[in-house]
Amino acid sequence: MQIAMIQDEIVPLSELDRVYLDRGTYFGDGVYEVVRSYDGKIFALDEHLARLVRSLNEIGITGVDIDEIRRRVDQAYETAGIANAKIYFHVTRGSQLRSHAGGRDLEPNFFLTVTELADDSEQKEHGVTVCTYPDWRWKRCDIKSLNLLPNVLARMEAERRGCAEAILVDEEGLITEAAGSAFFAVLAGVRKLVTRPLGAELLASITRRFVMDLAPEAGLTVLEQAMTPAEAQAADELFIAVTTLDIVPVVQFDGAGIGTGRPGRYTKSLIDAFREFVVHR
Amino acid sequence: MQIAMIQDEIVPLSELDRVYLDRGTYFGDGVYEVVRSYDGKIFALDEHLARLVRSLNEIGITGVDIDEIRRRVDQAYETAGIANAKIYFHVTRGSQLRSHAGGRDLEPNFFLTVTELADDSEQKEHGVTVCTYPDWRWKRCDIKSLNLLPNVLARMEAERRGCAEAILVDEEGLITEAAGSAFFAVLAGVRKLVTRPLGAELLASITRRFVMDLAPEAGLTVLEQAMTPAEAQAADELFIAVTTLDIVPVVQFDGAGIGTGRPGRYTKSLIDAFREFVVHR
Repeated sequence: MQIAMIQDEIVPLSELDRVYLDRGTYFGDGVYEVVRSYDGKIFALDEHLARLVRSLNEIGITGVDIDEIRRRVDQAYETAGIANAKIYFHVTRGSQLRSHAGGRDLEPNFFLTVTELADDSEQKEHGVTVCTYPDWRWKRCDIKSLNLLPNVLARMEAERRGCAEAILVDEEGLITEAAGSAFFAVLAGVRKLVTRPLGAELLASITRRFVMDLAPEAGLTVLEQAMTPAEAQAADELFIAVTTLDIVPVVQFDGAGIGTGRPGRYTKSLIDAFREFVVHR
Repeated sequence: MQIAMIQDEIVPLSELDRVYLDRGTYFGDGVYEVVRSYDGKIFALDEHLARLVRSLNEIGITGVDIDEIRRRVDQAYETAGIANAKIYFHVTRGSQLRSHAGGRDLEPNFFLTVTELADDSEQKEHGVTVCTYPDWRWKRCDIKSLNLLPNVLARMEAERRGCAEAILVDEEGLITEAAGSAFFAVLAGVRKLVTRPLGAELLASITRRFVMDLAPEAGLTVLEQAMTPAEAQAADELFIAVTTLDIVPVVQFDGAGIGTGRPGRYTKSLIDAFREFVVHR
């Protein structure tokens, strides 16, 4: 008799709930998005759904009705009734007995959580520290997939070193992005906002795009160029950007203080501009 | 109220089964092994458990009692009562609300299946075809982790091209290994068995080790050296090696016939030697 075992419990394979045969767990064979709400309104859902569609296409998961996903997100958010919520959702290729190439004509699995966002005012006001970690990820980081073990290892090591985020550095010694966020530097003298150009080695972050669009309002022009850790340490200001926190100043990088050691004025301008943008969008 | 949604069903987060919060699904934050039985006896469990311990250590999953894992594997196999079985099991860091670095002091999740192995005599007798695919995997393929999306994509593309397995080729144009197996070439003229040396870019396959140990019985000496696809196509014989199938001849590589286009005599000798080895071990 074919069986499964969950911790110490033996179950006939035929009676196993499909969640245990999810290709998301066996292979990380799925993609995800995280959106948030500000004061009762989901922010930038269209952009996140467009990216989800791209991710699904890139790994060949078919049969996903994106309007259905949108309806589920809206319904879940409405049910939760949380003003400032984090909405996580993933779509996997489906459930079946483990087989690398088996995943055709399966019903995709959808899973979502709506949770309360923690207060981030402390981080925004005082900034956070970051440290570098080798970028061990795969060659298609433009796909927002469930293969996130290298990100986890980097973030865990960062926390062990007392840092809030890990900055990933590729084999050429250049920063790609952070383990769970986009990474920016401000060069005040030339009024440049610097971030790595998009490519297969980093995610097309939606917050990154918004921040770049807002740069002129803060008196900055955007320079898409990869930086070394030394260049980042020499910058006047650094910050990370991610959906759940939008912009968070970075005040220490691998132990070195950045600028004055406090959140810089351009970063504060961008935080203000982002807040305005969220309200009036 | 914090909630989850599974397909269309909304569940309060507090009532969600822990399987839905498995870090294995969120991040692929876990490691796995596959063992098989031959005629009622599990083969090489010690070696697989030793590799599991190493994988767990490499990603910092603690609190796993390996004797308990062994007991579960034995108990499950005994319950299933399948002579030639495939036993898959994974251990993940545990379940919690999604957070990259949150995984400390969690109870690891264990999951196992025992299933019937398909008859492989056809593949062994006639050989299989393979085709190349870029190696998109992360930089720690020596860890047997659940981050397997690049392997899945390679294998799915191979199947679309009518091939049984994908041979992964790195950025230097050298073969690393196959998407789900080790890869070998035989150079008959010099009686060499060629395979890539171990490193972070490929898995320390247990079947690979056994095959190398058996090489002298087939009249071959081992040469650990990376090959290009062109070198593989020019080899006299090719085969893949993996726990579930042990040795399978490769008779076509990216459309080019290998040797006589039929399983070669060294490969057959190795298949025979492996069978003997299994029986007498």
